Formats: sequence, structure tokens, C-alpha cells
Amino acid sequence: MVGTVVGAGRSQANLETALARGVIDVASQDLAAAVSEADVVVVATALAATESVLKTIAPQLKPNAVVTDVGSAKACVQRWASAALGNAATRFVAGHPIAGTENSGAGAAFATLYRNHRVVLTPQADTDRAALGVVRDMWQHTGAEVVEMDAQTHDKLLAATSHLPHMVAYNLVETLAGRGDAAELFDFAAGGFRDFTRIASSSPTMWTEIVLANREAVLAACRDYAEHFSELINALENNNAAALEQAFSRAKQTRDSCLVPESNEP
Amino acid sequence: MVGTVVGAGRSQANLETALARGVIDVASQDLAAAVSEADVVVVATALAATESVLKTIAPQLKPNAVVTDVGSAKACVQRWASAALGNAATRFVAGHPIAGTENSGAGAAFATLYRNHRVVLTPQADTDRAALGVVRDMWQHTGAEVVEMDAQTHDKLLAATSHLPHMVAYNLVETLAGRGDAAELFDFAAGGFRDFTRIASSSPTMWTEIVLANREAVLAACRDYAEHFSELINALENNNAAALEQAFSRAKQTRDSCLVPESNEP
Repeated sequence: MVGTVVGAGRSQANLETALARGVIDVASQDLAAAVSEADVVVVATALAATESVLKTIAPQLKPNAVVTDVGSAKACVQRWASAALGNAATRFVAGHPIAGTENSGAGAAFATLYRNHRVVLTPQADTDRAALGVVRDMWQHTGAEVVEMDAQTHDKLLAATSHLPHMVAYNLVETLAGRGDAAELFDFAAGGFRDFTRIASSSPTMWTEIVLANREAVLAACRDYAEHFSELINALENNNAAALEQAFSRAKQTRDSCLVPESNEP
Repeated sequence: MVGTVVGAGRSQANLETALARGVIDVASQDLAAAVSEADVVVVATALAATESVLKTIAPQLKPNAVVTDVGSAKACVQRWASAALGNAATRFVAGHPIAGTENSGAGAAFATLYRNHRVVLTPQADTDRAALGVVRDMWQHTGAEVVEMDAQTHDKLLAATSHLPHMVAYNLVETLAGRGDAAELFDFAAGGFRDFTRIASSSPTMWTEIVLANREAVLAACRDYAEHFSELINALENNNAAALEQAFSRAKQTRDSCLVPESNEP
């Protein structure tokens, strides 16, 4: 049962959008005051602001308050929470809803965003079981499927399936943007290119923070990707049709067999 | 005005699908016979088969028959047509509809596929103006916007906006497919990854032929891309947030300002 949802944020315009759309019941620009009566605190801010937000709220938390977050990297968030929350750190449950669009802010919210999407929670050995249950229930009520894993596994998985793809998409568009014929190029881009580069419209600030927060795992994924790409270039240089077709086929087979299409965006 | 549409193909199953869906009026597995009464011949086959198809149909063409194609690379097709068609080469109008999905065959056809999409025609100095008019009219009747450019410009444009993105998408999925945790990775892939890798479900044979047919332009685009990607890796290695955010921002700004969303797929 949810009582009152208090939304704390820096942007009055975003808070007003959230109020108008019924996302929150009460708006506040005073973070410390906003959490002082809360049973559950969801830290949904930029990764770069997370540590400072945790430090700000720590002295204001009610004795049994449960704290969770939604950041795209989890090992770093757990370090910050352990350092900032003191005794309350055992009631911190790190979380990551694997859902979203390229848009940000309360205006981008929609009710079915989490339905049938995974939410990863990364509890530690000393995480309070009751707190874990509260966060799990909260997400299940949005229609999400909650799974647990350790933070390092999460960070490796997400580096490969989300952080690397963003690097790749940003890099593709950025490479083309630098060309003399960029305007003509984008004018001629077909549907596939549009879909493909949609994620390159995501927030540059947020994604800079994410890839830096998960730097080691993202670097490993990027280096692996770059090595495979240089093998494709070699195949092309050598007119090696068999090598190209083998790589393309492995990609197609894996995608067709492992990815089930879904569509629950508006 | 279109009279009878004769579909010639190797696959009886695909011809029957085309007949059943009203895409063609008459089916034939005899290419030479199929073109002998045609006023307009549309060569819509694999790039690797194009030269041989042009050689097969050349002696069967009616004196004023107009021939066009739909291949994704144009300089090579023009070389093949010049060599294969003899005197009829001036009535060959190379063309490329910039539309399509990751699916192939008559079952993947839909009526609005070309609507508001570009069709590039790459006539040469000696191309018959009447033949060009016929092909232009044909495409305009599908709702497409017809533009003309030289074959080399087309090949450079498409290398950047279509062939490179396919290399990139295939490479991303292929890199992940090779990992020990591939099944888990794909299980956790979110919506962005699905959209992003849709084009990696395209035909591996067709795309091997396309990148080889447009090899020089694709190689140049791939090398440019790989260089930019290694700069991103360097920025990540050096914790250079400013460089990352600058690259991501340039990508977002260019995409948001140059690409107008569109949606006319079923």
C-alpha cells in the first residue's frame, strides 16, 4: 500500500510536470525535509549525484526507513551507500530497472514502462531481508519481474547489453556528424538507421556518468567489440566473403533465437 | 499504367506467395522467357546474381525495353550492365529504393513500404531520357520520392548510412554471441538493444554481397568509425568525462536536429 509519494527534485518545472501527471502527490525542493517522514526512499538521480544525495539524506532517515536506487551501475552505488549510510546501510537495497527510453524527466514517464521488464536487485550478505522484501514488492506492483544477482555480475551484464550499445550508437552518429557531407547523410538515412541510432538521443551527461561509473566492465566490453570489428575490417580488406558471412550469420542466429520481440512502449 | 506483372524467380514457394498476395500476376521460373514480352524489367535479385541475370536477359529483351535494378550498390551494377547489355545499356537505369525491413521475400512485402522513402536513380551521361522517365514514374506511383545522383555519390552515402550501420550491428551481436555468458546477456537485453540490433537479423548472404560490392566505400567508413571508437576508448581509459560528453552531445545534437522521426511500417 502506497500512502503519500513525496517527490524531491531541483527542477521546479519537472516537479510540476510530475504533480500534474499524478506521478507524485507532494513536491519538494528540500531533499532533507522530503525524506524525513519516508518509509521508503527511492534515490532516482544522476549517478554522479548519488553519493552526495545519500550523504544528505543519511542523518534525516527514519529509524527503519528502506532506501533503494535505480542507477545503471551497482558496485559503485553500493560502495557509496556503505560509506554514507552508516547503520542504515543494511536497509539499502541497490536496484536497477532495465527499462527506459531515450527521453528523461517526469514528462517521459508512462504507466506500463516497467511491465514485463526486469528489475535487478543486488543485495549483499548483510542486506536486511525485510528491506529487500519491501523493494521487491514495490517493483512487482509495477508489473516488473524482479531478479537478484551480485553487483559485479550486474555490472558486467549491463556493460555488454546496454553500456556498450550506447557507446557504439553514439560513436556511429558522432563519426557521421563529423563528415563534410553530414547533412546529406542524415537526409538519406533509412528506417533501420533511425531505429539503430535512437539510443544516441539519450542524455549525454547521464551516459557519461554511467560509463565512467562502470568503467572497467565497459572498457572490457568495448575492447572486445573493437577487436571483433577489426577482424571484420580485415575480412573486407581480403575479400573474405566466407568470414563475413560466418560472422553475420552467427549474429543473426543468436539474435533470432535469443531475443524475443516485445513491445510495451506507448 | 501497369499491364501484366510477370514474376520470375527460382523459388516456387516464393513465387506462390507473390501470386497469392497479388504482388505478381504471372509466375515463371524461366527468366529468359519471362522478360521476352516485357516493356520494363526490374532486376530485383542478389547483387552477386545481378551480372549473370543481366547476361541471361540481354538477348531476350524487346528492342525498347527499359531495364532497372534495386541493388544497394550502384557503381558495380553500372559496370555489369554496360558490359552485359550492349546497345540496350543506355536504357538501363540503375536504381536503389532506400526502404526495407530485416525480412526478405514476397511474404515481407507491404503496400506502403516505399511511401515517403527515397529512391535513388543513378543515370549516366548516355542514359536514355525516356527510359529514365519510365523508371522515375514507376517509383513515384509507389509513393516514393525519386532523386538522382551519380553512382559514386550514392555508394559513399549508403556506405555511411546503411552498410556501416549493418557492419556495426552485426559486430555487436556477434561479439556478444561469442561470450560464455551469451544466453544470460540476451536474456537481459532491454528495449534499446532490441531496436538497436534489429538490422543484425538481416540476411547474412545479402549483406556479405552488399559490403563486398561496395567494398572501398564501406572500408573507408569502417576505418573512420573504428578510429573514432578508439578515441572513445581512450577517453574512458583516461577518465576523460569532458571528451566523452562532448562526443555523446555531438551525436545527440546531430541526430535530434537532422533526423525527423517517421513511421510507415505496418
